[in-house]
Amino acid sequence: MKPIERVAIVGLGLIGGSLARALAARDVRVLGYDSMPDSLDAAEGEGIVRQRMGAQLEGIETADVVVIAIPVDATVAAIARTAKKLGNARLVMDVASTKQSIVAAAEAAGLGDRFVGAHPLTGSHRSGWRASRATLFDDARIFLCPASTATTDARQLAEAFWRGLRAGVEFLDAATHDEQMAWRSHLPHVLSTALARTLREAGIQRSALGPGGRDMTRLAGGAPSMWTSILEDNDTALITALEAYERQLRVLREALLENDSRMMKEFLVTGCDWFDGAPIPPLTGRDT
Amino acid sequence: MKPIERVAIVGLGLIGGSLARALAARDVRVLGYDSMPDSLDAAEGEGIVRQRMGAQLEGIETADVVVIAIPVDATVAAIARTAKKLGNARLVMDVASTKQSIVAAAEAAGLGDRFVGAHPLTGSHRSGWRASRATLFDDARIFLCPASTATTDARQLAEAFWRGLRAGVEFLDAATHDEQMAWRSHLPHVLSTALARTLREAGIQRSALGPGGRDMTRLAGGAPSMWTSILEDNDTALITALEAYERQLRVLREALLENDSRMMKEFLVTGCDWFDGAPIPPLTGRDT
Repeated sequence: MKPIERVAIVGLGLIGGSLARALAARDVRVLGYDSMPDSLDAAEGEGIVRQRMGAQLEGIETADVVVIAIPVDATVAAIARTAKKLGNARLVMDVASTKQSIVAAAEAAGLGDRFVGAHPLTGSHRSGWRASRATLFDDARIFLCPASTATTDARQLAEAFWRGLRAGVEFLDAATHDEQMAWRSHLPHVLSTALARTLREAGIQRSALGPGGRDMTRLAGGAPSMWTSILEDNDTALITALEAYERQLRVLREALLENDSRMMKEFLVTGCDWFDGAPIPPLTGRDT
Repeated sequence: MKPIERVAIVGLGLIGGSLARALAARDVRVLGYDSMPDSLDAAEGEGIVRQRMGAQLEGIETADVVVIAIPVDATVAAIARTAKKLGNARLVMDVASTKQSIVAAAEAAGLGDRFVGAHPLTGSHRSGWRASRATLFDDARIFLCPASTATTDARQLAEAFWRGLRAGVEFLDAATHDEQMAWRSHLPHVLSTALARTLREAGIQRSALGPGGRDMTRLAGGAPSMWTSILEDNDTALITALEAYERQLRVLREALLENDSRMMKEFLVTGCDWFDGAPIPPLTGRDT
């Protein structure tokens, strides 16, 4: 496979910035753009971005690989706006947390042959260029959702790209991805935010929490505008997950209200068994 | 103040075992008991417990300080059973996560003058002697809830005891403690367990989660029997906290169902502001 020599990255936040760093460390020429001039200045000043792009993404047509690393809604818009400059790219990827609407946008823009949606499971409550680091993808898990018409070359190149950054790769279709992420990522995020809001109402500051409470509220620090577009985009699957979670809370509330120690213990034991990876016993006490 | 020379510890789990290690490292003579012979053998074999107690706690009457480090319900029973052997102790403490029923048990048993309930906020999903470590209390926060008739000497000795282990100390009454802990510790714990159960039902294993999902499910690994007695003991305050949390989830669910981006964003922004310790804006979108 022809090596990747020039990668254009649109958006130098946590993921785009870390990508730029990881690629630069491997002698790939990085073309970069960010809507915040300070981030772009810093990335250029540190020698990570070797070729600066303006708001019109001048030069993006010379890249082998293009990575759009901005929030979901902005990604959809950027694909439509930039498509006609991407005729020479061997591979176009995004890195947002939902994939269906983005893959659909790429197909609609005529980029289906070269588009592979990517979702690095490297979320953090930190964001922006300053949070970026070259090692973000070491041992990370990357979900890849190719457009239905993506060529074998594009698929293989995407896999090689991420494996070259020491990440593990898993292919799945965009619909399955979004449904899975509702449970594995988006539900945990909103539960953390709901706890943050609950404690705020109760007048309790994060500094008053122990290590467990801090773990439980860390995700609440995630960038709200990025997460708003994730929730908008994956609302249906998230509602299903949220309702399942609310049923669990009702099981617990009932156990507490009825002072039912057996039910409290079963609630805790099944959660702990799952944590330990124990074999799954039959369900009881389930609110249907 | 007369130095502490002999400390008896009943229960050598995460907290009792760590206490034993931290005290032994400071040349305090530790008398130890655990219902699991393996733990007691290990603690003695490592030279941490210098004097072994049997199930009748022989020798406990010679200790300056007695620490009962077992689950809430067992603590209440142990106080009643052991009280008459504790006439010589200058200070008796427990280390459980709720304090009202324990302080009441100590007062009822005639130990009020020397009893100070302690709650080290050092919870972990790990438990037992093998999880114990001498540094567990470094910079930890310890809540102290003296019995209403506790002497100044007992209060001062309790404070000196924990400060000597490099922990910070905060005095508050047992009722306030339990109400606060419902929000700060018990609510986060049950929310983590509820997420574990939700993911289990959805057929998702913990190994499939990213760093955020793992943070959110770590507490679910806590010892179920210990936590059952905490939930039993603090059920009323926890129900209040749980209901407040369920209101937050309803706010979110409504925003998702109505596709209300403004409301989604406000949900996320207020959680993030709290995380960042920002000034608290007026509440809106509140489900009352």
